[in-house]
Amino acid sequence: MDQPIDAAPPADLDAVVEALMVSYPKDGRTQHIDATFLPSRARAVECIELIRRIVFPGFFDDHRLTSARLHAHVSELVRQLDALLYDQVRQSLRYRENAQQSGRGDDCDDCDTQARVATNAFMQGLPALRRALALDVQAAFDGDPAAKHTDEAVFCYPGVDAVFIHRVANTLFRLDVPMLPRIMSEYAHNETGVDIHPGATIGESFFIDHATGVVIGETTEIGKRVKVYQGVTLGALSTKGGQDLRHKKRHPTIEDDVTIYAGATILGGDTVIGARSTIAGSVFLTRSVPPDHVVLSTQPEPQLKARGGDGSGNWSI
Amino acid sequence: MDQPIDAAPPADLDAVVEALMVSYPKDGRTQHIDATFLPSRARAVECIELIRRIVFPGFFDDHRLTSARLHAHVSELVRQLDALLYDQVRQSLRYRENAQQSGRGDDCDDCDTQARVATNAFMQGLPALRRALALDVQAAFDGDPAAKHTDEAVFCYPGVDAVFIHRVANTLFRLDVPMLPRIMSEYAHNETGVDIHPGATIGESFFIDHATGVVIGETTEIGKRVKVYQGVTLGALSTKGGQDLRHKKRHPTIEDDVTIYAGATILGGDTVIGARSTIAGSVFLTRSVPPDHVVLSTQPEPQLKARGGDGSGNWSI
Amino acid sequence: MDQPIDAAPPADLDAVVEALMVSYPKDGRTQHIDATFLPSRARAVECIELIRRIVFPGFFDDHRLTSARLHAHVSELVRQLDALLYDQVRQSLRYRENAQQSGRGDDCDDCDTQARVATNAFMQGLPALRRALALDVQAAFDGDPAAKHTDEAVFCYPGVDAVFIHRVANTLFRLDVPMLPRIMSEYAHNETGVDIHPGATIGESFFIDHATGVVIGETTEIGKRVKVYQGVTLGALSTKGGQDLRHKKRHPTIEDDVTIYAGATILGGDTVIGARSTIAGSVFLTRSVPPDHVVLSTQPEPQLKARGGDGSGNWSI
Repeated sequence: MDQPIDAAPPADLDAVVEALMVSYPKDGRTQHIDATFLPSRARAVECIELIRRIVFPGFFDDHRLTSARLHAHVSELVRQLDALLYDQVRQSLRYRENAQQSGRGDDCDDCDTQARVATNAFMQGLPALRRALALDVQAAFDGDPAAKHTDEAVFCYPGVDAVFIHRVANTLFRLDVPMLPRIMSEYAHNETGVDIHPGATIGESFFIDHATGVVIGETTEIGKRVKVYQGVTLGALSTKGGQDLRHKKRHPTIEDDVTIYAGATILGGDTVIGARSTIAGSVFLTRSVPPDHVVLSTQPEPQLKARGGDGSGNWSI
Repeated sequence: MDQPIDAAPPADLDAVVEALMVSYPKDGRTQHIDATFLPSRARAVECIELIRRIVFPGFFDDHRLTSARLHAHVSELVRQLDALLYDQVRQSLRYRENAQQSGRGDDCDDCDTQARVATNAFMQGLPALRRALALDVQAAFDGDPAAKHTDEAVFCYPGVDAVFIHRVANTLFRLDVPMLPRIMSEYAHNETGVDIHPGATIGESFFIDHATGVVIGETTEIGKRVKVYQGVTLGALSTKGGQDLRHKKRHPTIEDDVTIYAGATILGGDTVIGARSTIAGSVFLTRSVPPDHVVLSTQPEPQLKARGGDGSGNWSI
Repeated sequence: MDQPIDAAPPADLDAVVEALMVSYPKDGRTQHIDATFLPSRARAVECIELIRRIVFPGFFDDHRLTSARLHAHVSELVRQLDALLYDQVRQSLRYRENAQQSGRGDDCDDCDTQARVATNAFMQGLPALRRALALDVQAAFDGDPAAKHTDEAVFCYPGVDAVFIHRVANTLFRLDVPMLPRIMSEYAHNETGVDIHPGATIGESFFIDHATGVVIGETTEIGKRVKVYQGVTLGALSTKGGQDLRHKKRHPTIEDDVTIYAGATILGGDTVIGARSTIAGSVFLTRSVPPDHVVLSTQPEPQLKARGGDGSGNWSI
């Protein structure tokens, strides 16, 4: 970074700093000074990667994992995770406590106890998480003719990754851990293009094919053996409500064995898609469907026009 | 990387190298040899991360930030940013100069002066950038019933991140800095799934919910308090024009207080969406809408068919 | 990570470890213990980054690349790539061998020979890959009025990046290398939002504008000079077939000089889009189109309603 010889004068950086110092206290929304330290995105990601290596042993390690080394390997990972997760959960709880009652500082003894209880519950749930993930992996393999082996689904399917991270985030959400689950779900969103709110309830054997652009809202309820494709939205009906609508069921209910094809949009808290029904691609639905039905959109008839005739003259997009 | 014992002979790597050496001079589009060094994507990302820490102090640091340390902390970041940004802006200007007049080498004294002027203007604009971002953060919180606190919007909303990076890239674009703004906007695209051309003009209090798949073209103009959802395209009408259309307004104008729901597509440089109008999800629009209107698509009536009857027989997708 | 003083008792981590040890042998789908070591995602990404620096010299290096240094520079990269790629290809072949015949251990002498043959073929194809990429870069520049120079397309267009990685993955796929191509294509998906199965056949001068949300299935065939926009799906018709459909042509054929606008969906193995035809945005197609036609959707007429009148009363979404 050699300095310019024949250049304009440098900025008055002291003046920039002073202007920023004046700016900071004016707006609490864009600064976090003297406030409780936030949970860390980098640490949240470390938690996810440790959990991944514990629940899928041998898939994501640097060396081949043998039975002989397994016990020591898993013991080490479990201990690392317990310490790291406890720390982040505690930070998240302290953060919430202080956001609600500003002025208390970092003092929150309850937070330590709550963090321990939540972390313990999470750790004890790891074998159950493995059982849920095995069913998700099987669903991914069964649902994709291009899959050659279940290993591929574990190793490189973004839809499986998104569901794995959701099951972790949702477990913490149900344990009433604030902030951290959302950080995890936004990490999944960033990695996979799938945006599942940590509050969404998703049954076993869930598969998202091609992943990109799926949005599943906070109060969605999804049954067992449901399959969705890229670009599906399970969302809220628009309203002027904004913050008033918190805690209300705003997103649909999808019963067992439903399939929803690419780009379909299903909206509203009272909308129920009955068991074993199928929603075709690009369908736009704001009301319920009984069980055992197929929902097709009367797709607008594509119009064919020969190029060069008068058809092409007035054509645009 | 142990070598195979019983394997086919290794590739003649010298021959591969020679073939590549023959290939390089043949096509200027796929090599950048003896050319002005390009701005660096890694450095561009460093600039963004420094700016983020300056405009949102305390949110993205490794340690809790206290008032006592604030001045020294910000001074240090501002100095780092000034040096790094100057360097990248100068490289971008030299790059353009030489791309236009090949053969001048790296010699471009004006570039140093121009880089200093642009960098100074950017640095002096940091407090104003903070004011704009505070309004974006508030818009994100107000617009999302699932948000618990504005901190969440700053800390983990991809839509807020995309708008933050756009405001940085657009400031540099208006200062006539080449290449670097586009590198920044593609970084945002990569991280968030939101593709906003750095040339797009976006008013205050802008919010993108769920982020993935939004595309906003170069000559789009967006007013104040506009809200868009995932998968919205503000694009150009298709043409055979390609490069001929540069510098023409090709993308729509969205006036103040408009809301555009998920998956809507609005195309064309003459298309104006009037103030306070609402565009429903999945609407496809190529002409203007007056103020204070709602645009609904006559959604194709979903067809329900009971499975197992003759309805399911001829059903596909 | 200071320990809590007044907290709940820590989890019984030994019990968690024992429960996991019991869980592992119960489900082969979620563990990879005592199994052939898998190819490495990190190494696959290293291969792609080396190939990128070989085929686009001077664009992605840390220093300006001069003619004087070029030969030594490329020789070094080619040797690194050959060793790294051979290793990953061999690992992928061993992995497949053992997945098919469990119990053989890591012993697979044929794998070494096959890996050498495939790696040699890949290395020798590098100059041809450069020729293909030059045409893709030109297509990107020609197709985007916002592009200022072909350098921009190489340097920061996600659509160009996705096609580059696809051409690498597809070459390995045709050389019958398992797993590794899919790891590469999921890396591209993660980086760009474009999901192209490594088996898809794509002709020269291919361009994807805005990238996010494009899905191109395994048995798709695409001709020369085809252009697609964000959110386009070239997919399979839904079926209950799942794994039964492997090896069947399930995805469409797109002939030369076709353009497909944003959000269009084209499905089915028998669907052929004839040469020079254009598919408008958001069209949903499950049957063939002859050459030289334009396919427009009869877009549902947008309904305008003035706010505040009875129009707004019954409006939702």
